[in-house]
Amino acid sequence: MSKHLPNFLTRKNNSLWLTEDERENLEVSYKIKEIVFEGQSSFQHVMILDSYSFGKMLVLDGIVQTTSMDGHIYNEMIAHIPLCIHPRPRKVLIIGGGDCGAAKEVCKYSSVEHIDMVEIDKLVVDVCREHLREVSGNLSDPRVHYIFENGVTFVQDIENEYDIIIVDSSDPIGPAKVLFEKSFYQNLYKALKNDGLMVCQSQSPIFHADVMEQTFKRISQIFPQTEIYTAVVPTYPGGLWSFTLGSKQYTFPSPDRLNYQDTRYVNPQIVEQCLSIPQFMRQQLKLN
Amino acid sequence: MSKHLPNFLTRKNNSLWLTEDERENLEVSYKIKEIVFEGQSSFQHVMILDSYSFGKMLVLDGIVQTTSMDGHIYNEMIAHIPLCIHPRPRKVLIIGGGDCGAAKEVCKYSSVEHIDMVEIDKLVVDVCREHLREVSGNLSDPRVHYIFENGVTFVQDIENEYDIIIVDSSDPIGPAKVLFEKSFYQNLYKALKNDGLMVCQSQSPIFHADVMEQTFKRISQIFPQTEIYTAVVPTYPGGLWSFTLGSKQYTFPSPDRLNYQDTRYVNPQIVEQCLSIPQFMRQQLKLN
Repeated sequence: MSKHLPNFLTRKNNSLWLTEDERENLEVSYKIKEIVFEGQSSFQHVMILDSYSFGKMLVLDGIVQTTSMDGHIYNEMIAHIPLCIHPRPRKVLIIGGGDCGAAKEVCKYSSVEHIDMVEIDKLVVDVCREHLREVSGNLSDPRVHYIFENGVTFVQDIENEYDIIIVDSSDPIGPAKVLFEKSFYQNLYKALKNDGLMVCQSQSPIFHADVMEQTFKRISQIFPQTEIYTAVVPTYPGGLWSFTLGSKQYTFPSPDRLNYQDTRYVNPQIVEQCLSIPQFMRQQLKLN
Repeated sequence: MSKHLPNFLTRKNNSLWLTEDERENLEVSYKIKEIVFEGQSSFQHVMILDSYSFGKMLVLDGIVQTTSMDGHIYNEMIAHIPLCIHPRPRKVLIIGGGDCGAAKEVCKYSSVEHIDMVEIDKLVVDVCREHLREVSGNLSDPRVHYIFENGVTFVQDIENEYDIIIVDSSDPIGPAKVLFEKSFYQNLYKALKNDGLMVCQSQSPIFHADVMEQTFKRISQIFPQTEIYTAVVPTYPGGLWSFTLGSKQYTFPSPDRLNYQDTRYVNPQIVEQCLSIPQFMRQQLKLN
């Protein structure tokens, strides 16, 4: 009667459920229509699940990373904001971003000539391109160069190369932990041109205020300009999510530079106001 | 061995959990430290639960309404924005708002002389004042007049009375359904002075886009000015929440009017940018 279920999935009242157990005091359970893909890479357990509430989802080690329903919010905000700050971005590096959504957004800018996408796990890129096209757009732009390597090692020997670096990492546990360390941000600084800038996701201002504060502090110790902005990502705990910018020169996003053709979250008003953050974040970051 | 558990609570691995079952495809479960209060009013099942992730929570018919951790976000945004739009609000009506948090915020404005708070369920006000002081502030300002009545009936015979009406309702199911009907908004229009304005919570732009759109449409058929704004409330499904404003005259919130002493979410920057909404909301509301 009983059939072996993939890790992280349970059967309840004849339905399949994914329950996120990342925090012990709050559980979010998604009712699943279908397991589209399941496999194990050298780095993590990888699934594409089709869910009732969020459509198709990329799930790594049991944690929802992005969904076809709201993945665009995160990807638009991590990509368009730095692209609206830099006046002429030509060469862009994306570290992580295996769902290809950030790269898809960067490709909307005609000034961009070359995108290096350094993702440690080829399996994630392959399954997202094949099964999660709502997010990846089945990205096949010739400007995108896939490099399946460790992002930390990749940037170590690079100098004065990129206009923009986007760090699209998972949570700072397991393989992504090193992407939140000061030495990594120092290497990013070195890898950027003299007027370059970087952005990284810096977790929930509500549930991971310590990580957000530490990221902001580390980046501001290295870069002359540091800014923080937010977006609302329904599948992430607490909804509110933060992104931290470190810049050598430019800081203000210009709505005039925005290419918002086909965007579903970002628009000129959102670009204009994205650096406005709630009072509790200003207090946490001692910005008052 | 087994002890009777209050409705909506379950025991799992020796711990108490509240599972919200409002949507059949997504479940959110909160681990509970303690049942602070449990009772049944003439209108609904009422609990104050102390939770691990969100502190104390008001739970009506099994649905989390507000928490000591994030209740201020909703209450600040539903109160301060209209108060920053009206140049001299003196008389304010709050319909619903049993947790007293909206009234607490309105009390911060010295121009306000009189606040009528019309809440159908006295039990909610009583337990929030006693057990949820992080939200209610144990409100005892003499300008607040409690009226334990049906809000729809209350406004029927009132004309030209209020500067601001705040509709702080629960979801449009059960008793709060009538607070989303066009005839109710017509009565609010009548109850407002010639330069008055109203605001109501209009649900999640993601999960209840139909309710948001319908509310916006109904209000814009009655009021010459209609605006919509958002806030991020982590305990509400999807995080992003919408508020719809109907105004007879004034529409732009002025950060100069803001009294943000002791606020934790709202600040001048948030007031300045609150009418900027994501592109998918503009599309849903046909604002492009």
